[in-house]
Amino acid sequence: MTTKIGFVGVGRMGANMARRLKDRGFAVTAIYDVYTEASASLARELGAKAVHTLAEVTAASDVIITVVTDDAAMRQIYMDGGDSLFEGAMGKLFINCATLSPGIHRDIEVAARLAGAATLEACMASSIPQAREGSLYLMCGGTPEAFERAKPVLAELGSTVRFIGAAGEAAKVKALVNMVMNINTAALAEGLGLGAALGLDLTMLREVFSQTGANSRVLATDGEDMQKRDHDCYFSASHAAKDSGIAAALGREQGLTLPLAEATTKQFEKMVALGLGELDKSGIAELTFPGRQSIAGTERATAL
Amino acid sequence: MTTKIGFVGVGRMGANMARRLKDRGFAVTAIYDVYTEASASLARELGAKAVHTLAEVTAASDVIITVVTDDAAMRQIYMDGGDSLFEGAMGKLFINCATLSPGIHRDIEVAARLAGAATLEACMASSIPQAREGSLYLMCGGTPEAFERAKPVLAELGSTVRFIGAAGEAAKVKALVNMVMNINTAALAEGLGLGAALGLDLTMLREVFSQTGANSRVLATDGEDMQKRDHDCYFSASHAAKDSGIAAALGREQGLTLPLAEATTKQFEKMVALGLGELDKSGIAELTFPGRQSIAGTERATAL
Repeated sequence: MTTKIGFVGVGRMGANMARRLKDRGFAVTAIYDVYTEASASLARELGAKAVHTLAEVTAASDVIITVVTDDAAMRQIYMDGGDSLFEGAMGKLFINCATLSPGIHRDIEVAARLAGAATLEACMASSIPQAREGSLYLMCGGTPEAFERAKPVLAELGSTVRFIGAAGEAAKVKALVNMVMNINTAALAEGLGLGAALGLDLTMLREVFSQTGANSRVLATDGEDMQKRDHDCYFSASHAAKDSGIAAALGREQGLTLPLAEATTKQFEKMVALGLGELDKSGIAELTFPGRQSIAGTERATAL
Repeated sequence: MTTKIGFVGVGRMGANMARRLKDRGFAVTAIYDVYTEASASLARELGAKAVHTLAEVTAASDVIITVVTDDAAMRQIYMDGGDSLFEGAMGKLFINCATLSPGIHRDIEVAARLAGAATLEACMASSIPQAREGSLYLMCGGTPEAFERAKPVLAELGSTVRFIGAAGEAAKVKALVNMVMNINTAALAEGLGLGAALGLDLTMLREVFSQTGANSRVLATDGEDMQKRDHDCYFSASHAAKDSGIAAALGREQGLTLPLAEATTKQFEKMVALGLGELDKSGIAELTFPGRQSIAGTERATAL
């Protein structure tokens, strides 16, 4: 029997995951998004139903995949007094893919148990093309039973599907991955920005970086984009601000002093404040290259 | 005719470069270091002469290689009113390998020309084992003529010998390499430190980092050392403080705002202030892991 999949949150990640699962023979049944145009358009494309209540997603699906914005959205879809995914959720499996605080995954798991349902966090350390190709890097947290149940679906979405531990543990790892990635991104933007100010050939500089202790994954993914100001969005600055904020908050909770994480959070928050939040995270170079910030600000101001 | 090589500054880098050149058939003639035990011991090992004035190094050598601590030491060996490497320097070639401010390389080149000598900066983006094996990554700045003259020597020291541009240009690139490397190192220390505080398995965490956007060269070189507190020195925290300071100063000169570079400089300066400056740069983890800072401080205080 074909497993019926419902989706909540069909931004570019969620939409590509739905396309991938449809390609791989799953029945994508119900789609919910607060942006009703997004859900309607994807539903037409995949022959699914765009629904207007969360309970309808649960009713129409065996497995419900959620990719929402933040902790607040997560509480809203599950724990709101009114319409909730947990209505009629007995026996259903929920897979939560957004980058959230660890605590919310634990809360949701407890609430799911009360509703007779199972939850799994499946944090994604990859981007939009990987979602479409089924080559995501997935880190999972929850019960081993929930992980086993989710495996057939996850195997079609990810090239790596890794069980990390109990609910919230994968979210911790994900927060740390993004924290370090975001700091390295901010570092690269400073290095290339200062290189530009010093009149260096940035193509040469990136090549030297790649061959030395300055090398990093973000150099490969974001370096050329920073140089060429190509900030088409794969991972937005506002997401980076949110994720860095999660990690910085975890650090404060633990009583640690993390000046780099704090400085990076501030930089991405500054981008959001300047109206640059929807640029790719590589857009942080707009803050560090000589002469760019004012131009970026002005262009933005003119566009608004 | 065998080229005669003199050395000024034979810490572990300089000493290993001298050993390598001796192995490769050069005559290492004269060795100078402010730590006379270091020069005496290396001179015995290599059958060279430990000399007590800079002018003696120049007199005994065709090519003089300098690996000194900082800008001040560089001015002292070349531009001091008294004993100077430029005494009797007509026709000699000086190769300067320390990480210094770009400006000093330009000053030294001018002074060399007046003395009838040639200089080349050859900035090293590698560490002690690479110096011994002749597999350094060398970035050179100066005149093309000086570079051509230095090539036979540099070819034995480096696996990559790259001409960057005029005097000072290689120092700029080097400062940027170390700036980005040091920020990435500080970032990694925060990521692993927070991971430890959150109770995560750090071997797992490093593996996930290596497979995701958090990957970096310093993860490979310093990650395990941070976890295991193995801070045997390859590149000291006090060097990192100096190098990050050079880059941060260049940023301020250019009127750029580089909060990550500034925060990283402060972290390495904090290590120096705590008496941890002679730990490897991976020792920055002592500042970010839960419980380590006080212990590190106490052990250090006891040892002093």
